[in-house]
Amino acid sequence: MSLKLQKLRQQIEGEELDAILISAPENRRYMSGFAGSAGWLLISPDDATLATDFRYVEQAGNQAPDFSIYRIQRGLGWFPEWTAEHGVKRIGFESQDVTVSVHNAFLKAIEEAEDSNNPELVPTSGIVEKLRVFKDADELALLTEAIRIADEAIDEIAPRIEPGITEEAVAWELEKAMRERGAEMISFDTIVGAGANGALPHHRADETVIRQNDAIVIDMGAKYQGYCSDLTRTVFVGEPDDKFRKIYDIVLQAQLAAEEQVTAGMTGKEVDAIARDIIADAGHGDEFGHSLGHGVGLAVHEYPHVGPTAEDDVLEDGMVFTIEPGIYLPGWGGVRIEDIVVLENGKARVISKAKKL
Amino acid sequence: MSLKLQKLRQQIEGEELDAILISAPENRRYMSGFAGSAGWLLISPDDATLATDFRYVEQAGNQAPDFSIYRIQRGLGWFPEWTAEHGVKRIGFESQDVTVSVHNAFLKAIEEAEDSNNPELVPTSGIVEKLRVFKDADELALLTEAIRIADEAIDEIAPRIEPGITEEAVAWELEKAMRERGAEMISFDTIVGAGANGALPHHRADETVIRQNDAIVIDMGAKYQGYCSDLTRTVFVGEPDDKFRKIYDIVLQAQLAAEEQVTAGMTGKEVDAIARDIIADAGHGDEFGHSLGHGVGLAVHEYPHVGPTAEDDVLEDGMVFTIEPGIYLPGWGGVRIEDIVVLENGKARVISKAKKL
Repeated sequence: MSLKLQKLRQQIEGEELDAILISAPENRRYMSGFAGSAGWLLISPDDATLATDFRYVEQAGNQAPDFSIYRIQRGLGWFPEWTAEHGVKRIGFESQDVTVSVHNAFLKAIEEAEDSNNPELVPTSGIVEKLRVFKDADELALLTEAIRIADEAIDEIAPRIEPGITEEAVAWELEKAMRERGAEMISFDTIVGAGANGALPHHRADETVIRQNDAIVIDMGAKYQGYCSDLTRTVFVGEPDDKFRKIYDIVLQAQLAAEEQVTAGMTGKEVDAIARDIIADAGHGDEFGHSLGHGVGLAVHEYPHVGPTAEDDVLEDGMVFTIEPGIYLPGWGGVRIEDIVVLENGKARVISKAKKL
Repeated sequence: MSLKLQKLRQQIEGEELDAILISAPENRRYMSGFAGSAGWLLISPDDATLATDFRYVEQAGNQAPDFSIYRIQRGLGWFPEWTAEHGVKRIGFESQDVTVSVHNAFLKAIEEAEDSNNPELVPTSGIVEKLRVFKDADELALLTEAIRIADEAIDEIAPRIEPGITEEAVAWELEKAMRERGAEMISFDTIVGAGANGALPHHRADETVIRQNDAIVIDMGAKYQGYCSDLTRTVFVGEPDDKFRKIYDIVLQAQLAAEEQVTAGMTGKEVDAIARDIIADAGHGDEFGHSLGHGVGLAVHEYPHVGPTAEDDVLEDGMVFTIEPGIYLPGWGGVRIEDIVVLENGKARVISKAKKL
């Protein structure tokens, strides 16, 4: 934990800030270990305080050993009190998380404080998010568990999908299978796209009835101790026909090539191109309309970017991301196959183990 | 739907605004019917536009018939374009929902627009929330369904709670029972507080093992087509002893009195006092440390306030709120009983039907 604080303090110094106020739930959890739903981290070079209310004081003390716990009684008076006590003049806040009304409330608290040192609130974005790209051994263990839960769930449920049941019913069976294996929740709304619905990458499971000879795109994930998995498999109800087999094999070949050829030092754009070129060479370049992948961790979508515009995202050891090429044919359906990999010793190790066709 | 727009337009005029930008998900859904997870409503006296991205354009057209659908391509250029087209100078936005970075992005879009009329962004709060307190017949039907789902779930599961299972396992059985009855999700994390845990009103279900002669506070809810239910029952594992029976009867008496005596025109404070006085007279006034209730609808907590400081919340026909007194004895446990009522013809009709002891 103190390594995370050390890295954050370097960032703060680099941004010419005296301190930072962390409020985004994943960032608060990442930096402190505190998993409660309300609280603020105040981090300066020589102090780390977690301010929360009576509901969470005990939990905060247990989960965030590197932080002093401050019990919020009412209002935001604790904020100018802390900045004055620690001589903080320029303090960053997470502008993608703090609302306009909360920001105004902080300004008012500063104005009304008796012994205020009138700190300046400086908007920041992405500071903790960029630390989060590198997963340590503890995080990797939790991710691996979240991935295992989803893998086992789909391997249990997919063979049981029969014509006549709805996409929604399949999604619910998958959710139950994940929850009963220890998931605290699903990491996003499960996608079950049967037949033509498979051509819509953002289709949610609905009342569509699954029929014989449907291809079904299933995109799902489990959350385990805060960490998310993200898994896509495309299954077929019945015996795959030639057209499906052909599309499936192109996607699978593109995916395996990206997994085998990615190396540390490549950009997200370069990895994307490995898969995209194979799909384009097979004549389906226009039918792969999304990025190859994305980072995954406490959030189901996080850094690094892995896509055609990710020329600035250099992939390095310790990063965890998805590889999920797809081909979508309007009116017919789609195929997407997604694994999660971690870069280790310069190469990708595939963590996902769910069966493929 | 057009009645809602008509009322909102009166509010906008009252606030001396030319238009309002709605972004909070529940408010967006309430005003338009659109249930997607991303989009903006732009409402002026003579226009109602829903701006959303390609994922939701079709759904928006189906769900929001009173709105013109605008497909967002990229950025926020649509915003100054719309204000210029409709001659909007002062436009309200929801300051409790819009983040500082999104607010800055709107300011930048205004600045960079070619034919900008330089609209002023005016922070507002609670405008749509205050319209939401009055439920129409369609909303009441959805709320009634959400309430029925939770009622049936607890009536099925509570008699099956046996010593040796964990609070978490009970919460999961309740969730499954609600989901299988049509809930799209639970409306908040289920509280199962066994034995001494029942004294902590915000305790979440955890690994605590339920024992013989535990009182268990169960607080749960279902979400059905966006509408939330909220139900608390306190159950006993085994034969209730005298102390439990005594505390339970005080809470039940307080609850029934509030349900029977509340009338339209009372304030939230006055209703709260009906129950609070009974609990105080029985010697437990200090052990009822929360409000008597709260409004419920698209959010599980919304207007009106029903509590000791709610002297400005006048209760009127069409409002839906909870009545949930409790007594909490540290180290022993707690009792809370919660129903949802709707005010009709000046009196409360109790919608919740789950069994009580």
